[in-house]
Amino acid sequence: MRLSRYFLPILKETPKEAEIVSHRLMLRAGMIRQQSAGIYSWLPFGKAVLEKVEQIVREEQNRAGAQEVLMPTIQSADLWMESGRYDDYGQEMLRITDRHERQMLYGPTNEEMITDIFRSYVRSYRELPLNLYHIQWKFRDEVRPRFGVMRGREFLMKDAYSFDIDQESARHAYNRMFVAYLRTFRRMGLTAIPMRAETGPIGGDLSHEFIILASTGESAVYCDKDLLDLPIPGEDTDFLSDLSPIVTEWTSKYAATDDMHDAAAFEKLPEDRQVAARGIEIGHIFYFGTKYSEPMGAKVAGPDGVERPVHMGSYGVGVSRLVGAVIEASHDDAGIIWPQSLSPFDVGLINLKPGDHQTDMACEALYQRLETAGVSVLYDDLDQRAGAKFAAMDLIGLPWQMIVGPRGLANDEVEVKHRATGERQTLTLDAAVNRLVEACCG
Amino acid sequence: MRLSRYFLPILKETPKEAEIVSHRLMLRAGMIRQQSAGIYSWLPFGKAVLEKVEQIVREEQNRAGAQEVLMPTIQSADLWMESGRYDDYGQEMLRITDRHERQMLYGPTNEEMITDIFRSYVRSYRELPLNLYHIQWKFRDEVRPRFGVMRGREFLMKDAYSFDIDQESARHAYNRMFVAYLRTFRRMGLTAIPMRAETGPIGGDLSHEFIILASTGESAVYCDKDLLDLPIPGEDTDFLSDLSPIVTEWTSKYAATDDMHDAAAFEKLPEDRQVAARGIEIGHIFYFGTKYSEPMGAKVAGPDGVERPVHMGSYGVGVSRLVGAVIEASHDDAGIIWPQSLSPFDVGLINLKPGDHQTDMACEALYQRLETAGVSVLYDDLDQRAGAKFAAMDLIGLPWQMIVGPRGLANDEVEVKHRATGERQTLTLDAAVNRLVEACCG
Repeated sequence: MRLSRYFLPILKETPKEAEIVSHRLMLRAGMIRQQSAGIYSWLPFGKAVLEKVEQIVREEQNRAGAQEVLMPTIQSADLWMESGRYDDYGQEMLRITDRHERQMLYGPTNEEMITDIFRSYVRSYRELPLNLYHIQWKFRDEVRPRFGVMRGREFLMKDAYSFDIDQESARHAYNRMFVAYLRTFRRMGLTAIPMRAETGPIGGDLSHEFIILASTGESAVYCDKDLLDLPIPGEDTDFLSDLSPIVTEWTSKYAATDDMHDAAAFEKLPEDRQVAARGIEIGHIFYFGTKYSEPMGAKVAGPDGVERPVHMGSYGVGVSRLVGAVIEASHDDAGIIWPQSLSPFDVGLINLKPGDHQTDMACEALYQRLETAGVSVLYDDLDQRAGAKFAAMDLIGLPWQMIVGPRGLANDEVEVKHRATGERQTLTLDAAVNRLVEACCG
Repeated sequence: MRLSRYFLPILKETPKEAEIVSHRLMLRAGMIRQQSAGIYSWLPFGKAVLEKVEQIVREEQNRAGAQEVLMPTIQSADLWMESGRYDDYGQEMLRITDRHERQMLYGPTNEEMITDIFRSYVRSYRELPLNLYHIQWKFRDEVRPRFGVMRGREFLMKDAYSFDIDQESARHAYNRMFVAYLRTFRRMGLTAIPMRAETGPIGGDLSHEFIILASTGESAVYCDKDLLDLPIPGEDTDFLSDLSPIVTEWTSKYAATDDMHDAAAFEKLPEDRQVAARGIEIGHIFYFGTKYSEPMGAKVAGPDGVERPVHMGSYGVGVSRLVGAVIEASHDDAGIIWPQSLSPFDVGLINLKPGDHQTDMACEALYQRLETAGVSVLYDDLDQRAGAKFAAMDLIGLPWQMIVGPRGLANDEVEVKHRATGERQTLTLDAAVNRLVEACCG
């Protein structure tokens, strides 16, 4: 993509309304624009990152055996009256009356609707286990939306729902999502720690939040330092096998959010392993048994022919929130530092002297060579001074930069910069192309 | 995917509420479930088709130089007051009051919001041409939603918006979308005919609807038969070149919707070229000049330094509607006939005798061979009678079927069936695999 044709409205000034770094950087890098309080448009660069996050979430859900559906944003209030949550949910629920005076709402979550889908079709334990997920916009009418996409009103969430014949099978379903989450977040360059958590309005008796540590985190968290180095289950994980050893390994070490913190237990850890920090919640999983299936009549016949309510769990990932969370975890004074898995382009190719025939020719050739080799390139062909180009490229945080100017070209050389480490190398054109192809497609 | 693990709730009975064939077939094939009037959940098979439609639309928008953004579903009413459309839109607009008593609405379209984005960032003609699109859920509170996803209330639409310095450039932008639409619909196996149309509430003085012919179409349409055989611009179309010859070729032959029909002109055609039929609208493009940019102050400086309002167009594709439209255009008494480009799986592999060791082994091996070769397979491993299996596979309409039973296997043979033509061939296992790999990946 040529920058001269790319809609990337970079802001020179730091927007006053932004209180935290991810919000500031997303606005400055032309990723989002606020349309109303807590409601954002995603501009091309932001949309591209959001899609990468979504795709990683999708791949890991599919790998774990969940199946993708898509439920609508607008729900009938009737379903929520059936479950008994309509009045509980308070003002956070955006209530709507349609032209025929029917009570509707913009879904803040989908336990009721998925239970309704389930009860309409599934009759027998033979059709279980079942896990259905969707990635859809939700709305929660926060009193005071803030922190950009980290606490917006309209937000993109992945929510999965598992259905099992009994508690033991439901526990396996829970474990599959637990492991899928470990993999999902690591693929985004994050170290997410599962912590026992309160179940809140979803209900249930077993729940973990997945939390990343960041100084700007919304809540205090406590954990055993050993958790930061635990290995993540590999791509070859068999999700049909018993995953409880993995879950046990992750849950037997101390980790708790503020609500669930047990200071006495925490202090029994050797002092150098006591991590007290701030955390950002990026996922939350629940087992809640028959809380919805019972009132809503979602039953299946067991092997004995007797009908019983299904055991359910729900599993959320804050997809749009993750874009902010990754930035909170990965930035420096100059801007964002994307992990390669989420970056819309692998390389920013900087033409230091647009209009200079030789430099233009060299840049065009490099652009084509890299793209042909499968490296995606944002080619800065704008007529601007070098300083502004460097600042913009650092701000948007692509993993690699290739800097091309007439002086280097005289020696058949360009500069390659690695955004995360700041390391720069002067290389011949061929060596530079090889270096980037290896780094990005290797 | 194994059918025993796939959530594909096929209905045996034809749902009473469905008036048209696409609605009936989508319900029967377990693609969608109605949640409220005109509001649907997309089950895994339906969701997979929807995603294929979306991806083709996206690829052709990108090819034509449009850039993807994502605007929110909930908009502030203020923007619509600025453009003057807030009161015009009537009861079809879903109006919402948030907890702070602010007037909001669920966007039925996005001209206002995109104009707001444009005016916030773009100042100079040098940043033009610009075309931004998104694929997002919309809501129109139809008095009487019907025909399944063909006229729902919550529906998925691709809407693109072009910005140009003057009418002539805007015309080029219009032509790019015109050509992109021809390509988009053909890739879905459709013959879509652009017809001059009324501009309705969007406004403007140039507009084409893209219409496919179908006996169940919602409106009468008239066109020159020659249009049905015009070649579609190829993948190598240069969207930076002058596309007006293509557009002229398509627009110089008679084609009009009922509203714009000129019977005298139509009757001048030779009788065997007069096509009077029913049509389904699947896309609609508009040029409306400065209708929004003027009241909303979206101006850019021209080469002379003088500011002027930008010329705009908007370009819609009914993404969720297309799923129904394709079925209207491609089905038979037995069910849906998917074009390969939209089918969630290439091949349905039917095991005629699950539980029979030899047949199970052969099916497993074929399943693996096909998947490894890049052919996506839905493997019917269910313990059901053959008739039910054949009916279900015909109903869901995958392009190919491979039928495997003990009798054929005794001669190292299986049957391959082409869904569209009904043609069946008995082939050796190797020949059958080669045939399908060639057909699906060739």
